Amino acid sequence: MDNLDRLKALLRRQKLDALLVTQPDNRRYLSGYTAGDMNIGESSGVILVFRRGAPLLLTDFRYQLQAEREAAGFEVRLYQRGLFPLLKGILVERGVKSLGFESHYFLHQAAVKLQKLATEIRLELVPVTDLVERLRICKSPDELKKIRAAVRLNEAVFQEVYQQLQPGQSERQVALRIETLMREKGAERPSFETIVAAGPNGALPHAVPGERLIRESEPIVIDMGLVLDGYCSDMTRTVVLGRMDDLTRDRFRLVRKAQLAGMAAVKAGATGREVDRAARQVIAAAGYGPAFGHSLGHGVGLAVHEPPSLSMRYHRKLQAGMVVTVEPGIYLPEWGGIRLENMVVVTESDCEVLNEDVTFLDV
Amino acid sequence: MDNLDRLKALLRRQKLDALLVTQPDNRRYLSGYTAGDMNIGESSGVILVFRRGAPLLLTDFRYQLQAEREAAGFEVRLYQRGLFPLLKGILVERGVKSLGFESHYFLHQAAVKLQKLATEIRLELVPVTDLVERLRICKSPDELKKIRAAVRLNEAVFQEVYQQLQPGQSERQVALRIETLMREKGAERPSFETIVAAGPNGALPHAVPGERLIRESEPIVIDMGLVLDGYCSDMTRTVVLGRMDDLTRDRFRLVRKAQLAGMAAVKAGATGREVDRAARQVIAAAGYGPAFGHSLGHGVGLAVHEPPSLSMRYHRKLQAGMVVTVEPGIYLPEWGGIRLENMVVVTESDCEVLNEDVTFLDV
Repeated sequence: MDNLDRLKALLRRQKLDALLVTQPDNRRYLSGYTAGDMNIGESSGVILVFRRGAPLLLTDFRYQLQAEREAAGFEVRLYQRGLFPLLKGILVERGVKSLGFESHYFLHQAAVKLQKLATEIRLELVPVTDLVERLRICKSPDELKKIRAAVRLNEAVFQEVYQQLQPGQSERQVALRIETLMREKGAERPSFETIVAAGPNGALPHAVPGERLIRESEPIVIDMGLVLDGYCSDMTRTVVLGRMDDLTRDRFRLVRKAQLAGMAAVKAGATGREVDRAARQVIAAAGYGPAFGHSLGHGVGLAVHEPPSLSMRYHRKLQAGMVVTVEPGIYLPEWGGIRLENMVVVTESDCEVLNEDVTFLDV
Repeated sequence: MDNLDRLKALLRRQKLDALLVTQPDNRRYLSGYTAGDMNIGESSGVILVFRRGAPLLLTDFRYQLQAEREAAGFEVRLYQRGLFPLLKGILVERGVKSLGFESHYFLHQAAVKLQKLATEIRLELVPVTDLVERLRICKSPDELKKIRAAVRLNEAVFQEVYQQLQPGQSERQVALRIETLMREKGAERPSFETIVAAGPNGALPHAVPGERLIRESEPIVIDMGLVLDGYCSDMTRTVVLGRMDDLTRDRFRLVRKAQLAGMAAVKAGATGREVDRAARQVIAAAGYGPAFGHSLGHGVGLAVHEPPSLSMRYHRKLQAGMVVTVEPGIYLPEWGGIRLENMVVVTESDCEVLNEDVTFLDV
C-alpha cells in the first residue's frame, strides 16, 4: 500500500472527507513533489487528498512545470489570486463536508481565512497534528536505504575534512569546506547549518561558526548533516588536535558512556523518556547534569528533526523502523563542549547503529 | 529614536500593553539577536516588548549564551518546558492586559495554546500583522549602507563566476561555485537557493539547478542573493555564451524594456500596482503577457522577500527609503526564460539603482 493509500485509510478512520497538506515534507512524502517552501509564508503549493477520488496539487505559476513533472497521479491546478478562492471552488465541487488541516504547519493568519471560507460553505474544519507524520515515523526499507546512503556520504565528507583539519583554520572555513564538499559529492544541501565550534564556543550547543581559529588541545564540536535524495543525515563528532589533557579525556569518556547507555536502551517498546533517562543519569551521576541541557535525540527522515523524540517529555513507545539520533553532550561556559551523535534504527530487540565512523568516540 | 522606541510608540497608539515577537527578522531588528529559526516549529526564541519597562528575550538552553551576548538591553529568560508556562508567569507579573502576537508568524497550533492561556489569566489577545514590518519597510541610512555592501559583494561573486562560465559546466556546479564564493568572500549565507537554469529549464521561474550541462547560444538564468551583516541582496542576470540568435536578442530587449519602464515608474507616491503595470504592459503589448506570470518585484532588507510588493494586488504607495527589486521575466516552456533583476532604492523623485553590473542588460 503506498503512502497515499495509507493516508486515505487514516482519513476514513478519522471520518475526514479530505486533508489539506501544507507541510513540505508531508507534501513530498505523499506526492513526490520535491519543492520546499522558502518559508511558511511563501508556500510552493499544497496538496489535497480526498477520502475518495484523485488528489490535487495546488500551486502557482512558478512551480507549475516542476509539479507536473514530479507529482505522479496528482492533478495540478494553479492559483493566481492566492490559495483560498481556488480551494473554495474545489471543496464545493468535490462535496467535502469535513476538512482536516495541519495545525502544526498552518499560520494563524491563514487559519482565520480558512475559517471564514468554512463558514461560507458550511464546512467542518478539523485541526490535525502529526497525521502524515504518523505515517512517516517508521521508515520503509526503501527509505532506510536512502538514509543509510546519506549517513555514508556524511561520514565520507567528515573524514575528508577531518584529515585536513589544522590549527589556525577558522571555524567558518571548516564549516564552509564541509558544506562545499557535501554538494560536490552529490548532496542536495546541508540538512541544517553546519556547526563548527572550537574551544569555549563549544559551550553553545547551537553555535554559529565564526572567525575563531581552532587550536591544539581544545575540543572542537563538528555537527553536520546533509540531504541526499530527500533524506537527511545528522552526525556530531568532537575532535581534539594534538595533546588531550586528562580532564578533557574524562569528559569525553563520560559523554561516550552516556551515549552507549542511551543506545543500549533503544528498542521497540521503550519510551523516548526511558531512553533519554538512561543516558541522562550517567551524566547526572558524574555531577554534570545541568551541563546537559537538551534532549537526547530526535527522529530523522525527510526532516532532520521529526518525531519521535528521545526526551523527558516523550512518553510514547519506540517502534521498529524508527530512525533516531543519540546525542548526549556537556556544555561548560568558558571551557567548551563535547557532543557525540550517532543515528540508529530501532529494531524489535535493540538498535542498529548506522554510523561506522568512530573518530574520537573511544579516547 | 531606536527601533525599540519606535515600536513602543506604536504599541501606545494601538493600545497594546505588550507585543510577542516571534518572526526571526523582527526579533533581530528589535533586539540584535541574530539567531534564525530552523523552521517555524523550532524557534530559537521570542521577544516580549512592553509598552513600559524593559523588554525580555525568552529562549532555551541552547541559545542562552548567544542571546546574552547579542541582545543588549534585553533580559534573557530560559524556558525548559516550552514557552507557554514561562510566558504565563511573566504576563501576570508584568500586569499585561492586552497582548499582540504576530498572526503571520504564529502557528495555529500555538495560537490555540495561547488562547487557552489568555482565557486563564483574562488577557486580551490581539492578532497583528506587519506591525514590526511597518517599521522595517523604510530603511535607515545605516541599513542602506549594509544593503549596498551586500549588493556590491553579490556583483563581485557574479562577475568572478561569469568570467569562468564555460559550456559543459552543469547548472549544479555553477550554483555551488556561486554559493561557495559568496561565503569565501564573507557572506553569512545565500539569501535563497541559487538558481542556475540553462536552456529550457529557464522556463521554470524557480528552477532547481540540476545536472544539465550549459550550452552555447541558450539563455542561462542566474538568480542569486546573499546575506551580509544580516542584510540581503537579490540579483538576476540572464547570460548567453557564444552566438545569440535574433529571436533571443529580441526577447532580451523586450524584458530589458519592461525593466526600464518599471524602474522609471518607481518613486515615492506611486503604488506597487502602478509600477508593476508599467513593466507588465510593455511585455503584454509585445504579446508575451501570459509568459510573465509573477509579480514585478518585492522589498528586500533583513528578509529577501518582504513588504512592499510590486504587484497587481499591492495598492499602497511606495515611500522614500524602501528598497525593492525590479525583475520582469518571460518564461516559455520548451524554449526557456529570461529574467533581469535589479535592486533599487525609492526616492522622492524617482529611484536609485543599486546595481552597477550591466552584464547582458543591453544586448
